[in-house]
Amino acid sequence: MRKVALVGAGVSRFGVRKASYRDLIWEAGKACFDSVPAVKPKDVEGLVVGSVMPERTAFQSHISSLAAEALGIRPSALSARTEHMCASGTVGIRYAYAFIAAGLADLVMVLGVEKLNQPAGEEAILNMGTGVDREWEASFGLTAPPCFALAAQRHMAQYGTTEEQLARIGVKNHTHASKNPNAHFQKGATLAQVLGSRMISSPLRLFMCSPITDGAAAVLIASEDRARFITDKPVWIRGTAQALDGFQLTSLHEDYAHWPALARAAQSAYRMAGVTARDVNVAEVHDCFAIAELIAYEELGFCGKGEGGPFAAQGRSDYGGDVVVNPRGGLIGCGHPLGATGVAQAAEVYAQLRGEAGARQAPGAAIGLTHNNSGMGEHVVMIYGRDAG
Amino acid sequence: MRKVALVGAGVSRFGVRKASYRDLIWEAGKACFDSVPAVKPKDVEGLVVGSVMPERTAFQSHISSLAAEALGIRPSALSARTEHMCASGTVGIRYAYAFIAAGLADLVMVLGVEKLNQPAGEEAILNMGTGVDREWEASFGLTAPPCFALAAQRHMAQYGTTEEQLARIGVKNHTHASKNPNAHFQKGATLAQVLGSRMISSPLRLFMCSPITDGAAAVLIASEDRARFITDKPVWIRGTAQALDGFQLTSLHEDYAHWPALARAAQSAYRMAGVTARDVNVAEVHDCFAIAELIAYEELGFCGKGEGGPFAAQGRSDYGGDVVVNPRGGLIGCGHPLGATGVAQAAEVYAQLRGEAGARQAPGAAIGLTHNNSGMGEHVVMIYGRDAG
Repeated sequence: MRKVALVGAGVSRFGVRKASYRDLIWEAGKACFDSVPAVKPKDVEGLVVGSVMPERTAFQSHISSLAAEALGIRPSALSARTEHMCASGTVGIRYAYAFIAAGLADLVMVLGVEKLNQPAGEEAILNMGTGVDREWEASFGLTAPPCFALAAQRHMAQYGTTEEQLARIGVKNHTHASKNPNAHFQKGATLAQVLGSRMISSPLRLFMCSPITDGAAAVLIASEDRARFITDKPVWIRGTAQALDGFQLTSLHEDYAHWPALARAAQSAYRMAGVTARDVNVAEVHDCFAIAELIAYEELGFCGKGEGGPFAAQGRSDYGGDVVVNPRGGLIGCGHPLGATGVAQAAEVYAQLRGEAGARQAPGAAIGLTHNNSGMGEHVVMIYGRDAG
Repeated sequence: MRKVALVGAGVSRFGVRKASYRDLIWEAGKACFDSVPAVKPKDVEGLVVGSVMPERTAFQSHISSLAAEALGIRPSALSARTEHMCASGTVGIRYAYAFIAAGLADLVMVLGVEKLNQPAGEEAILNMGTGVDREWEASFGLTAPPCFALAAQRHMAQYGTTEEQLARIGVKNHTHASKNPNAHFQKGATLAQVLGSRMISSPLRLFMCSPITDGAAAVLIASEDRARFITDKPVWIRGTAQALDGFQLTSLHEDYAHWPALARAAQSAYRMAGVTARDVNVAEVHDCFAIAELIAYEELGFCGKGEGGPFAAQGRSDYGGDVVVNPRGGLIGCGHPLGATGVAQAAEVYAQLRGEAGARQAPGAAIGLTHNNSGMGEHVVMIYGRDAG
């Protein structure tokens, strides 16, 4: 299996955008190509696009071919769209990774894009119901916020986790986002603001939830030889793993405060990368809701089971702590344009491991992690390294 | 790069089905597991689902996780949905192939599924407009039938191709489908019936077009060691290639009777497989319209450029000819449930190369080919072999 690295990255402005899918694709694609002048669109052998619901918000399938044409890419090895709800972008990175690792391609772009506010955010909230089981859950109102609220309530009951500890994650990620010029929210948030914000699904309040965001992100992925030709600072894909326990809530065998599929994915990814949780300097963790980040601390091994609340409250997931989690602001602060999220996380790790993250830089970051859930029982973890390992 | 093989296959009944996505997934998944008793759902490490528009016809994204749960599969290595319009299923096969070839998995199911007649076929005809550029083509009426009609008219003007030659492809594929108990149409068709059928987009008549079909198909794909453990007749993936010229009609630089991206994809796939066009015994070719099969004969190298009409009329693409094209009835006779098509083609080649295709068997088939277009400028070709090569 060949070594594979990120060699370029770019993101669009995230937010409620007066922009079409094509506009967002142009923005992120151009930012990515601008990041690596040695690469022109004609050099790119493949394009994978992570996107969940262009069919609903733009009446458009076949978005990978639309994107290739918009960016002047003429795929000669690989062209596809990937979808795995909130993990769609990372699943696209894995597609390109496998192709390059197997020797089937040398230079592939992965782009994630979602236009959710179309015609308006209210429509998106309905459309998000497509991500859970339509016939058995969504139609009874069991969409994402109440699912994750169940996890939060269980965690509070079992481990004494508090609303304030959950709110600390909202504060941290909104504060991080205030240093990210591409984030949806840039005003930061105080503890009082988070705890005083509107209740969405008890105990999850508005500032503990990711918003309805439009945006796009792109990365360039290359084989070892190509990577070293393109840049002297490639960021290596050291590990990747995916694990699923189930789709419907009823198929999750553990209580909702335990996510064993995430622990399995993390252990597989660490093993492949030859690192442990303690080696991770910077982590982009899937904080669709604050409780998701809190449980991820535990299942990723950043702290013991049940210790996620104190871990957050003591600042151990912030600058100066054990690991900087969600420096770009996470899904809560930066926004969550579904297909774009995983790719934007990779773009952040790319900047962090190259030491180019500016005001958001995690000092000396050498190992980075990204995580997406697409439900409490479905997880994907990537490990990146400044060294090839 | 490791060798990879098909080790199981199954298809649902194709047609206008009173069945949901879940029902179709169950049917094809069960047929696939029934084909290979040595494999249980718990043995399968990954599931890739090719599907285009469950968001539109079932208000359901995240269909790969729904499918995994429906089939009792708990992915430990790989889970994703792939979409590339009419090539979605084959693009899924390529995802699994790359993962296994790279050593990241050993046994993966690829399932393709589409429920188009929902609430009715008329809705599907609107939904199919999502497959071309919404803003620049579909909204002006330039959907698939007129696009391919332009190709047919150009081919007739340039090479003297006749309506009767195009009709022969409709007759052949409807006749083949009459021997396929899972096909949408099973009554066959005479030349008079095809030439007398309703005009859809001149010169393409109803029986020269693929219908609006519901259906699903599944294959199991394994690494060499696992394949030899599971069956003594694996069907090897010998070559795979994808090439794109463009998405919008205006970006295709050649006239519409020439599809250079298909010629490039075919040559790459042949090279990888170590075979030539002459070695192909059985081919599943993307006959969304009769002209697409006719031009594919030429670009795949089964005959010279411009000779596709006589090649069809002389029976050289039928039993007893040079190569048996579309033995299961093709998209015209068997139907075209978008995401399912590429996987159903692979399932047919699997049966053919194992000598298990019954009344449809191509004698002595040792090399099989599948082809999908997702527009005149976008092509994917797979080469399968009875021998590992």
